[in-house]
Amino acid sequence: MATSGKVIRCRAAVAWAAGKSLSVEEIEVAPPKAREVRVKIVATGICRTDDHVLDGTFPDLQFPVIPGHEGAGIVESIGEGVTSVKPGDKVILFPLPQCGECSFCLNPDSNYCLKSHLTEPQNLMPDKTTRFTCKGKQIQHFLWNSTFAEYTVVPEYTLAKIDAAAPLDKVCVFACGFSTGYGAAVNTAKVKLGSTCAVFGLGGVGLSVVMGCKAAGASRIIAIDINKDKFAKAKEMGATECINPQDFKKPIQQVLTEMTGHGVDYSFEAIGTADTLIAALASCNMNTGVCVMVGVLPAGSTVPIDPFLLLSGRTCKGTLAGGWKMRDSIPKLVASYLEKKFNSDLLITHTLPFAKINEGFELLRAGKSIRTVMLF
Amino acid sequence: MATSGKVIRCRAAVAWAAGKSLSVEEIEVAPPKAREVRVKIVATGICRTDDHVLDGTFPDLQFPVIPGHEGAGIVESIGEGVTSVKPGDKVILFPLPQCGECSFCLNPDSNYCLKSHLTEPQNLMPDKTTRFTCKGKQIQHFLWNSTFAEYTVVPEYTLAKIDAAAPLDKVCVFACGFSTGYGAAVNTAKVKLGSTCAVFGLGGVGLSVVMGCKAAGASRIIAIDINKDKFAKAKEMGATECINPQDFKKPIQQVLTEMTGHGVDYSFEAIGTADTLIAALASCNMNTGVCVMVGVLPAGSTVPIDPFLLLSGRTCKGTLAGGWKMRDSIPKLVASYLEKKFNSDLLITHTLPFAKINEGFELLRAGKSIRTVMLF
Repeated sequence: MATSGKVIRCRAAVAWAAGKSLSVEEIEVAPPKAREVRVKIVATGICRTDDHVLDGTFPDLQFPVIPGHEGAGIVESIGEGVTSVKPGDKVILFPLPQCGECSFCLNPDSNYCLKSHLTEPQNLMPDKTTRFTCKGKQIQHFLWNSTFAEYTVVPEYTLAKIDAAAPLDKVCVFACGFSTGYGAAVNTAKVKLGSTCAVFGLGGVGLSVVMGCKAAGASRIIAIDINKDKFAKAKEMGATECINPQDFKKPIQQVLTEMTGHGVDYSFEAIGTADTLIAALASCNMNTGVCVMVGVLPAGSTVPIDPFLLLSGRTCKGTLAGGWKMRDSIPKLVASYLEKKFNSDLLITHTLPFAKINEGFELLRAGKSIRTVMLF
Repeated sequence: MATSGKVIRCRAAVAWAAGKSLSVEEIEVAPPKAREVRVKIVATGICRTDDHVLDGTFPDLQFPVIPGHEGAGIVESIGEGVTSVKPGDKVILFPLPQCGECSFCLNPDSNYCLKSHLTEPQNLMPDKTTRFTCKGKQIQHFLWNSTFAEYTVVPEYTLAKIDAAAPLDKVCVFACGFSTGYGAAVNTAKVKLGSTCAVFGLGGVGLSVVMGCKAAGASRIIAIDINKDKFAKAKEMGATECINPQDFKKPIQQVLTEMTGHGVDYSFEAIGTADTLIAALASCNMNTGVCVMVGVLPAGSTVPIDPFLLLSGRTCKGTLAGGWKMRDSIPKLVASYLEKKFNSDLLITHTLPFAKINEGFELLRAGKSIRTVMLF
């Protein structure tokens, strides 16, 4: 039964135009329509993708917009036809929907969902209207999430109910960064027990890959970064060795091949440059090695791959949000977290009150944070 | 018990130097040493790789050499310690060894074998001597096969005994071309029942991919070539549709995506150009699509891959000899052939007496043959 009520006035961080900082404003949030849910956001992570909104490089986006896509909160009200959640439920919102009806959702091997931003721009709700206004202006949605608002409205298929015991200020990172890295290891690469892994780049996603490799039972996890300050945390998360390419005269792929005999079983690129992707591909076993591209390269770039790296049998593949079907998987990941199968709390280096959101972005840009979580 | 006897004088096609035609000569073939087998070659296919020997582009090779690596014959004698074959056995020789002892052979997922040419050049027998002489000169081996000789000597781990009922003039193609294409579909891609496939390039390997897709139960097999004369044979082998990129103004990847809704499940590049590899990758489903590189691109070339093709979840992988562990698999492939699970005979368009071997190469270079088999 729908519980949707009145317009709510609350705070949100609005991006008025590309190239400008976020502006914390008072906005109006309309009640949810049919199959929509209004959520009181409790905590939201800041992801680099949000920064790409601000700098104007995120594709198919309109301003003014409320960014944010790593949020957790509590259902405030539901529209007609919503059945999976009710007011008071704890939920995580996610940027990759799972409508459950499209051909991709019906395919057990796919997690793409045709309602995702790349095929259906999500600046507006599915009915092509917005639930947000500010100073008399319509404000656009972002990835059907817009978690930089104290209250947001989303389609039912972009959230999932989670265990009431889950701490929202911790599990909000499951919406994007953690799940992408962890899933790249356990879903996309399907890391095997006793295998050897190399992880290029020890940001939040790379460290989540390390956790995924550990959870999958890899016996050797070699973490690679040019910033050795990240090594302590990588080891805490499961890395067995940490190396800095700048400490070697040889290419890092040669170093890794010599360290392992014939290359690692699985390599992960979590930086987003062509050079590191090629190094990761060359670092894995010439015949059975799997290289997973997790980092996002600049749009329009190309990676000049030597076909002989593939010819002998290597695999190079990408991962979309770690390969998870989000609605099905997020509650299970939360359950695993509560059972302490991994410690994603280590990713969260900063927690700030929502009013300081621009400070959160500064920490990100300065490379001082892994994940900053904003609290309402 | 070893049965090795005297030196045999017989015919062989010798490549005296790069850039020259083969010369049919009388050669001397020494008896097999320990763990070696002397085989009377009955039939041998001509593969493009042999032409790369003649034009000097095959890496790590010394002249004079006896090429040929798609041979079938009968064991003439065996050296000390040979246990898997005896004189009179029908055998297929193959260019990718399976020593059974190296770390790759012991890994159930790998078929690389550390005795393969790329890690251990096979111009000489494992004891670093040659079994061939001609006009007083030592002649080099090729891939431990040298099937362009009426008698050849090979290590035991580069051949396998096959069913005595197998017609050697037909199953010789299992040594390389057929197995590579067929295995790319059934082993490397693991084509699923009811899936949709696209095969770029309808030479011998591409047509073998078509057969593999059919054997795996693909419901739609789209064959692509700029030479429509190849379409009839492709359909005979299992292609459900044949298209010529030159018949469309749009890029072929767009054509295939429109034909299939969201791209094919599996695409195969069996030509060996960067453009077709990129088209094949872009033609498969953005999230779950698998693109297998079967064609061999020129050494030193690079393929400029758009990382966004991978980011949404696609897989790009190579295949080494179709992923088969050769000694284990070739006898099984022969059994499947005898049970008529596929009709690889369709690949063999020409059969010539051995003396006409240069004519066989001319047919290959002129694009007039799929496979030419030479008979002793």
